[in-house]
Amino acid sequence: MTFEIKKFNPAEMGMPLGLYRQISRVRASEFIFIAGQLSVDRSGAVVGKGDFEAQMRQVFANIGDALHSTNCSFANIVKITTYLVHSQDIELFMETRKKLFPTLFPDGGYPPNTLIIVDRLVQEEFLIEVDTTAAL
Amino acid sequence: MTFEIKKFNPAEMGMPLGLYRQISRVRASEFIFIAGQLSVDRSGAVVGKGDFEAQMRQVFANIGDALHSTNCSFANIVKITTYLVHSQDIELFMETRKKLFPTLFPDGGYPPNTLIIVDRLVQEEFLIEVDTTAAL
Amino acid sequence: MTFEIKKFNPAEMGMPLGLYRQISRVRASEFIFIAGQLSVDRSGAVVGKGDFEAQMRQVFANIGDALHSTNCSFANIVKITTYLVHSQDIELFMETRKKLFPTLFPDGGYPPNTLIIVDRLVQEEFLIEVDTTAAL
Repeated sequence: MTFEIKKFNPAEMGMPLGLYRQISRVRASEFIFIAGQLSVDRSGAVVGKGDFEAQMRQVFANIGDALHSTNCSFANIVKITTYLVHSQDIELFMETRKKLFPTLFPDGGYPPNTLIIVDRLVQEEFLIEVDTTAAL
Repeated sequence: MTFEIKKFNPAEMGMPLGLYRQISRVRASEFIFIAGQLSVDRSGAVVGKGDFEAQMRQVFANIGDALHSTNCSFANIVKITTYLVHSQDIELFMETRKKLFPTLFPDGGYPPNTLIIVDRLVQEEFLIEVDTTAAL
Repeated sequence: MTFEIKKFNPAEMGMPLGLYRQISRVRASEFIFIAGQLSVDRSGAVVGKGDFEAQMRQVFANIGDALHSTNCSFANIVKITTYLVHSQDIELFMETRKKLFPTLFPDGGYPPNTLIIVDRLVQEEFLIEVDTTAAL
């Protein structure tokens, strides 16, 4: 099976409310499921206590490490789900995404995202968790 | 690969607590991942402020548009996750589903659903978000 | 297509914060999507009101029933998402997992997990819901 992934905003739908595509469509021979990533370093220590942008950057660095370990890149991501703890961080999430994503997804192939504000993550310090599915 | 999707309630399990099937089983050559859909029209304006049923209908209309843009229909959905903001809307969600789903899924092939009540969605006005995975 | 599933912690990443693997990688011909499972028996009655461990055991028993109905076992799980209602139950979740998972996953093939604390589930009595994707 030839790998093919298309991420797009169909004319039938409104534009996304941010840097994501409404749809990804994938023909793949393998799927990669990554555990929800938090802002920890390799020793498991929390990175960026109280600093949302630092946490978000660490989370995507961890996702990058996960992808590279399977010979994938961010282009292989087919869907993400983003959980934030504070609605006050939504704007900062949007701003950090604008800074970060054009580098991670240089061809503009932003994956579909679902953004949810929840009560808490596994430890009180964590401000963001990202769940990722990729394909190849 | 021949496309085949089965949605069923196995005898080993209890009946679902609503209009969904416990399991979907799919043999597919392509998967479609749709960003979490909110109650917006094509211009991005919120539809149905303070009206849960109107929002839920708009959300599923948007999912329908997403499916049609990939030559799929609701029958291609393999899983949904539904996020509500207010537990007071759970009953209205069940009632609206009873009105809406027999039309969207005329053969009774309701997809497995996970229903979660969360703090908030991307904007305060949104009362429901639905995350959809489809296959073909 | 030959079925193959690998669950691992790549050297590039930190160790998981519990009994899960950072990544699952799967080459499969079929996917199984299971509706979020709650602590109900086959009659739909709530099991273990106010008893987190009892609820968690029932939830995984239900997931086991779902898997068996498709000729799968826990080894076929590629991803789970765990929703808890009370952050006070996180420790009990970790402890119950340590008791339960070595039996359910005897080869240590723990699936990637995303743990989220949310407001509520479909009924007030439910303390945990688990969403499962499997492959074969």
